[in-house]
Amino acid sequence: MNCWLTVMQIAGRMALAGHLVCEQHDWYREVVVMRAVVYHGPGKKEWEEVPKPTILEDGDVIVRVDAVTICGTDLHILKGDVPAVTDGRVLGHEAVGTIEEAGPGVKVLKPGDRVLVSCISACGRCRFCREGRYGLCVGGGGWILGHKIDGTQAEYVRVPFAETSTYLIPSGVSDESVLMLADIGPTGYEVGVLNGGVQPGDVVAVVGAGPIGLSAMLTSKLYSPSHIVAIDVADARLEAAKLFGATATINNSREDAVAAVKELTGGLGADVAIEAVGIPETFELCAELIRSGGRVANIGVHGKPATLHLEDLWIKGVTIKTGLVDTYSTATLLKLVASGQLKVDELITHRFSLNQFMEAYDIFARAADTGALKVVLTRS
Amino acid sequence: MNCWLTVMQIAGRMALAGHLVCEQHDWYREVVVMRAVVYHGPGKKEWEEVPKPTILEDGDVIVRVDAVTICGTDLHILKGDVPAVTDGRVLGHEAVGTIEEAGPGVKVLKPGDRVLVSCISACGRCRFCREGRYGLCVGGGGWILGHKIDGTQAEYVRVPFAETSTYLIPSGVSDESVLMLADIGPTGYEVGVLNGGVQPGDVVAVVGAGPIGLSAMLTSKLYSPSHIVAIDVADARLEAAKLFGATATINNSREDAVAAVKELTGGLGADVAIEAVGIPETFELCAELIRSGGRVANIGVHGKPATLHLEDLWIKGVTIKTGLVDTYSTATLLKLVASGQLKVDELITHRFSLNQFMEAYDIFARAADTGALKVVLTRS
Amino acid sequence: MNCWLTVMQIAGRMALAGHLVCEQHDWYREVVVMRAVVYHGPGKKEWEEVPKPTILEDGDVIVRVDAVTICGTDLHILKGDVPAVTDGRVLGHEAVGTIEEAGPGVKVLKPGDRVLVSCISACGRCRFCREGRYGLCVGGGGWILGHKIDGTQAEYVRVPFAETSTYLIPSGVSDESVLMLADIGPTGYEVGVLNGGVQPGDVVAVVGAGPIGLSAMLTSKLYSPSHIVAIDVADARLEAAKLFGATATINNSREDAVAAVKELTGGLGADVAIEAVGIPETFELCAELIRSGGRVANIGVHGKPATLHLEDLWIKGVTIKTGLVDTYSTATLLKLVASGQLKVDELITHRFSLNQFMEAYDIFARAADTGALKVVLTRS
Amino acid sequence: MNCWLTVMQIAGRMALAGHLVCEQHDWYREVVVMRAVVYHGPGKKEWEEVPKPTILEDGDVIVRVDAVTICGTDLHILKGDVPAVTDGRVLGHEAVGTIEEAGPGVKVLKPGDRVLVSCISACGRCRFCREGRYGLCVGGGGWILGHKIDGTQAEYVRVPFAETSTYLIPSGVSDESVLMLADIGPTGYEVGVLNGGVQPGDVVAVVGAGPIGLSAMLTSKLYSPSHIVAIDVADARLEAAKLFGATATINNSREDAVAAVKELTGGLGADVAIEAVGIPETFELCAELIRSGGRVANIGVHGKPATLHLEDLWIKGVTIKTGLVDTYSTATLLKLVASGQLKVDELITHRFSLNQFMEAYDIFARAADTGALKVVLTRS
Repeated sequence: MNCWLTVMQIAGRMALAGHLVCEQHDWYREVVVMRAVVYHGPGKKEWEEVPKPTILEDGDVIVRVDAVTICGTDLHILKGDVPAVTDGRVLGHEAVGTIEEAGPGVKVLKPGDRVLVSCISACGRCRFCREGRYGLCVGGGGWILGHKIDGTQAEYVRVPFAETSTYLIPSGVSDESVLMLADIGPTGYEVGVLNGGVQPGDVVAVVGAGPIGLSAMLTSKLYSPSHIVAIDVADARLEAAKLFGATATINNSREDAVAAVKELTGGLGADVAIEAVGIPETFELCAELIRSGGRVANIGVHGKPATLHLEDLWIKGVTIKTGLVDTYSTATLLKLVASGQLKVDELITHRFSLNQFMEAYDIFARAADTGALKVVLTRS
Repeated sequence: MNCWLTVMQIAGRMALAGHLVCEQHDWYREVVVMRAVVYHGPGKKEWEEVPKPTILEDGDVIVRVDAVTICGTDLHILKGDVPAVTDGRVLGHEAVGTIEEAGPGVKVLKPGDRVLVSCISACGRCRFCREGRYGLCVGGGGWILGHKIDGTQAEYVRVPFAETSTYLIPSGVSDESVLMLADIGPTGYEVGVLNGGVQPGDVVAVVGAGPIGLSAMLTSKLYSPSHIVAIDVADARLEAAKLFGATATINNSREDAVAAVKELTGGLGADVAIEAVGIPETFELCAELIRSGGRVANIGVHGKPATLHLEDLWIKGVTIKTGLVDTYSTATLLKLVASGQLKVDELITHRFSLNQFMEAYDIFARAADTGALKVVLTRS
Repeated sequence: MNCWLTVMQIAGRMALAGHLVCEQHDWYREVVVMRAVVYHGPGKKEWEEVPKPTILEDGDVIVRVDAVTICGTDLHILKGDVPAVTDGRVLGHEAVGTIEEAGPGVKVLKPGDRVLVSCISACGRCRFCREGRYGLCVGGGGWILGHKIDGTQAEYVRVPFAETSTYLIPSGVSDESVLMLADIGPTGYEVGVLNGGVQPGDVVAVVGAGPIGLSAMLTSKLYSPSHIVAIDVADARLEAAKLFGATATINNSREDAVAAVKELTGGLGADVAIEAVGIPETFELCAELIRSGGRVANIGVHGKPATLHLEDLWIKGVTIKTGLVDTYSTATLLKLVASGQLKVDELITHRFSLNQFMEAYDIFARAADTGALKVVLTRS
Repeated sequence: MNCWLTVMQIAGRMALAGHLVCEQHDWYREVVVMRAVVYHGPGKKEWEEVPKPTILEDGDVIVRVDAVTICGTDLHILKGDVPAVTDGRVLGHEAVGTIEEAGPGVKVLKPGDRVLVSCISACGRCRFCREGRYGLCVGGGGWILGHKIDGTQAEYVRVPFAETSTYLIPSGVSDESVLMLADIGPTGYEVGVLNGGVQPGDVVAVVGAGPIGLSAMLTSKLYSPSHIVAIDVADARLEAAKLFGATATINNSREDAVAAVKELTGGLGADVAIEAVGIPETFELCAELIRSGGRVANIGVHGKPATLHLEDLWIKGVTIKTGLVDTYSTATLLKLVASGQLKVDELITHRFSLNQFMEAYDIFARAADTGALKVVLTRS
C-alpha cells in the first residue's frame, strides 16, 4: 500500500485541512490545501480545494502561480477528446510564477526566482532532449502538466525536471508577456514559422485566424515575409488578423482562397502555408495553396485523416511538416520580448483573478461571441 | 506558312532522304535521316527513320548518341499515362554522347566534347533554376526530352539550353557509369537520400527494390547510415537489394514491415523512409515506418491520392518531401563515379546495340521475368 | 588587324561623331557617342565623350542608364588600389535603366524593359554560378562592370550575360530604391547578415557605420535581432546608425567596445560581429567582440593581413566568413522593397543629374564633411 | 576548516588505508584507496595510491575504469602548458568502465551499467548545453576531467552530471572501439569533418597525420569525399594515413603542398582543409590550400597567433571554424561503431595493463620512434 497515493486519492474527492498521519510508515505530514481547476470527466470541472503539491523528485520545484492562462487544448480535454486526462487531474500547462521550494537536485534555480513554466517538460537526458526535441522526450517529460500530472491552473504547481522545464524571467519583463511564451508563442513560432521555413520576402498563408494562427502571424514577422495572408471563415477573426501582421485577408466561406493566393503570387502559390485549425479541409487547402517547392507547416491538432493528393504533389517538390511544440525557441523569444521586438501580450483580451476561473473558462469557450483570444488569470 | 514545320511534319510520316527546297524562303537544305524510337500512341512504338535534328535555338547542341537507356517512365508513357507525349515523339531522356554541332550561343561546349545528356533541361535563368531547382524550371526547361520535345532514344538528339543541361565527362570514366547519372542516379540521391536527410548512423527504410529503390540504397551509402532496410514483395528484388547496400530485407507480402523495423530500432521506427513504388499503400507504409521526428522522402510517381493519418502524425514531428529530380547533384555524382566511390554501373544488367531497341524494351518491360534493372544500348 | 578594336582605341582618346568605315572588312558603321565617367589613371577621371556601346555577344543587352550611383570601391580605384582597372575604362557597377537593345541569345528580356544592373555579372553556367555563388563566377562574370569592362557611370552600358545579371523591376517600385540593390543592399545582407547567420534574438555588433555598415544594420533587422550595436570612431556616423536600426552605439575612439558589448550580453560577447571597415584593427576587434560559438562576417575590403589570435580562438568555437557579394539575394530584396519591408532608399543623401558626375564624386569623396552616404545621379 | 579537503590533501601526498575520523564533524569514513596517474608539476607524474573517489553531488556516478587511454593533451599538461592543472590532479579524460555507485539524482543509469566516459561533461541545463554545445558548458561542465577535477587515468573515477556526460554502451561492442569515442573520434568528426562541412565528392586536405588527423580522415569517409589528401612532414605518418583513408599524400618538408592540391583540383584548391597540428604555419597552409568558397576547420590546439591574409581572403568567400569538441555526435558514432561502419579501434597500436601506465606514457610520448597512435590500458 502506497500511503502517499492514498492521500492523493482522498485529496481528489474532498476539501482537506489539518494533518495527516501514515501509521504504516511512521510518518506525519501537515496537509496544506489550495484551490485548483480540477477535471471531473467530460464537461465537468471545478475550482476546488486540493492538497498543495510537494516535492516528489530531486529535480522538482514547487511554483506559486502568479499568472496563468487557458489553452484551446484545455477545451479539447473538457470535451473528453484527450482520454489520458482522468478524473481528478488539475488542468493547465502554462504559468508564470515564483519558486517556493526546490528539490535537492535543483542547482541553479532557488526559492524566490521568478520563472516561466513551459507547456513542455524536458528530462534533459534522453536522445530527443539532447537534440532539442523536448516535445518528443522519452525520459518522462513532453507534455505532462495538466495531462499526465497535475497542472498549472492552481495556486501552486509541482514542476518536474525544473531546470530544463522552466525559464528564469529577466527583470523588466511583465508576467503577461512571458506567460504568452508558455505555449502559444513557441507553438506558433516553432511549429508554424520555423517548420514552415519562413524567410525574408516569402508569401505566407495562414489558414485559421484563432489565437494560434495569430501567434504564427505575429512570429512570422520576425523573418520579414513580404506578405502574410490570413484565411478564415469569420470576418471578426480576419479583422483581428490585420492587427497581428496579416497584409491580406481572405474569407474562404465566400472567396476562393487558392485563386486569391495565386493572383497575389503571379500564379505560383504561397511559399509557406501554415495550418492552424485541425480539420482535413484546412490541411488540404494548405497543400493546394503552396507553390511548387513550397512548404506546409501543420500546427492544428487533428482527429481525422486527410487526403494527400500525391497525384499532384509528387512532382511539385513540396515539404510537409507536423509537430508538437518543443519549446527550444523559448529562450530566444524571451530575449525578443525583453527587447520589445515581440509584443505577444497583444494576444490577451480578458483579465481575471484566480478565483474567477469558472468565468474565465466561460468567456474563453465562447470566443466567437466574446472575441476572446487569450485570457489571463492572476493572483490578486 | 512556316516551311520548316512543314518539313518536320513530312518527316514525321515518312522516311526521307535527299534534299529539300523551300522556294518561299529561297532556302535549300539537305535533309538527313536517322533512326529513333518513335511513340505512336498507347502501346505503339517503332525504331524508325526520322529527320536528324538540327539546331533550332542559339543554345542548342546536336549530340550523337553513344549510349542510351530506357526508364520506367518510358513504360508509363507507352501505357498512355503521360498524355503530354503525343504521336510522333521520339522517346528517351537519358544519354551519353558526343557533340556534333553547337548553336552560336554555346560558348564552353564544342563539337567533339563527350557529354552526359541529363533528364532535366535547365533554362538557367528563371527563379527556380537560380535556386538549383531545375526540375521546376519555368523558362522552357524541366523534363522536356522525350516528353515535350524529341528525346534521346535515337542516333542523334537536339539538346536545348545545352550549357546548363549537359555535363562534360571527365576522361577515364566509362559511358555506362555516366549514363546512370542521366536520371536514376540523381533521382535516387536527390529525391530519396537528400530529401530524406539521410545522416551517418541513420536507419533508412527503402520501400520498393526496383531500379530506383536500388539507386536510393546505393547513394544512401554516401552518407553512411547504420542500417538500410529494403522492403519489397518480390524475393528476387530483395536479393538484389543486398548487393546494393541493404543490410536487412523484409518481404512485406508475408512479413510485418512496421513490426520488423520497430524491432530493429528499439521500438522507435526508422529515421528515414524512402518511397520508391508510387501507390498509396507504399506511401502510407512509409508514414508508419518512421519514428517520431523522422522523414519520408517520396520518389514514386503517383496516380492516386493517399491517406495521410494526421490524427497520428500531427504530434509526431514528421517531415514529408516529394519532388521530381532537379539534377543539381549531377556534378557531385560525376566526381564520385570518377573517384570510384560510386559504382552506379552495377545497376546495368543487359546490353544491346541501338538497332536492338525493340528487343531491349521487351527485356526491360518484362523485368520480373528477365531480372532486368537497367539496360544499355550503344552505337555499335 | 581587328578593326573594331581600332575603333575602340580611337574612341578612347577623342570625341567622336558621324560614321566609321572599315575598308578592310567592307563594313560600315555609324558611330554614336555618349558621355561617361572615364578613368585615366590614379586621381584622374573625366565625364567625357566615348562611343556608345554596342552588342558584342549573343547574351548582351545595351541599357540606357536612368539612375546610377558611386561606390566606395570607385574611390579605391581612383586611388590606384585596383590595378586591373586601366586607363580609358568607364567606371561604375550599379545602375537602374531601360533596355534599348538585346542580343540574339536574350530570350526573356526585351527592349523597353526596366532593369536593375547588378554589380555582379553571372555566366549562369559555371560550377560557381550553378551554386548561386555568382561573385566567384569562373565563366567570364563576377565583378566585371567598371572593372574589367566598361561600367555604368555612363549614359549607356553594355551588360553581358544579361539574363542572369540583371533583374526586371516590378512596377510601382522607384528607381532609387532599386538602385540601392545593385550592390550595397545585397552586400550588407549577404556578406554581413547572412554570412553572420543573424537570427531572431541575436546581439549583432557592426564595426564601421559607413554606408555598407548601415546597410548591414538595416538588413539585419529582417531577422529581428534583439540588439544592434554600432561601433565607429565618428559620432556623426553613430548618429546616422540610430536611424538605420542601431539600438546602441559605441565610439571606440574613446570607449572600450569589448567591455561595453560584454556588459550588454551578461559577459558573453556578441552573437555576431560584422566588419565593415577593412583594416586589421577592426577585424581583430570583431574577433574579440564575439562570444564563444559566435560568428564574424567580414565585409571590409582589406589591403593588409590581420592577426588571428588562435591561442584564444581555437577553443572558442567561432566561425569567420569572408566574401564578395554574390547577389543571390537580389530577387528576395526586390520583393521586400516592393512590399515596403525594406527602405534602402533611406541611404540616399544627395541627388544629381548625370551631367553633375564630377560634383557628385566630390561630395561623395568628402563624406566626412558632407555627410554623404549614397549619392544618386539620374538622367534629367 | 574543511575536513574533506584535508583528507584530500593528505591523500595527495601519501598512500592511505584504513579509516578516517573527523572529530570536528562527528563523522567517520572508511577511506578506500586506489591507484591513479597523479600530476606533480611539469615533467612529473606517478602511478600512485590516492583515495578512491566518492559521490559528491546528486548527479555523480563512480565508474570502475575498465579501459583508458592517453591523449596528446595529457602530454601538453605534463609540459606545463595547461596551468589550470595543478599538483595532485589525477590525469585523463577518456575511459570505458562500469558504474559502481550512482548519486540520488541519477535516474536512468545504475550500478553495473557499462558506460563510455566522455572527455566533455555537460550540465545539461545551461544555454550552451541546450544547444548541444557541451564543450562551451557554463554550468560546471565542459572539459573538466583530468583538468579541473580528477580524471580517468585511475582505477575509479567520479563523473559529475553523469546522465549527460556518459553513454550506455550497446552490447556486442568492444571496450576498445568505444574508448576511441571518448575524445579522438568525436574531435576528428565534429571539429574537423562537420565543422569543415565535408560533403560527398569533396576534396579534403588534412594537414597533420598524427592520431587526430587520422581520426579526421577516418570520419571524413562517412561523408564520401572523392579525395582525402594527407599532408605531413613525416613519411611514416603519411604511410599510416593511407590506411585511414588518404587517397593521396604530400610530404610538405620537400613537396609544395599548395601546388600539388591545385593540380589535383584543376587549379581551384581543396573544398575543405583540416588543421590537425596547432602551429601558425600549418594553419596558414590550410588557408592557402582551400579554393574560393572553401572551408578551413581548425582542430589543432594553438599557443600562438597566426597571420590571416585578409588581403587575399576577403574576396575568396571562405569559412574558418575553430572549436573544442562538444561530443554531440557521440551517440551517432556509437551507432556506426556498433554497425561496423566505423573502425576507430584501428587507431590503437599498443596495449597495456593499468599497472603499466608509466611505460604506456613513455611509448606514447615517443611516438616518432615507437609508431604509437593510440595506446590502451585495461584492468587486468
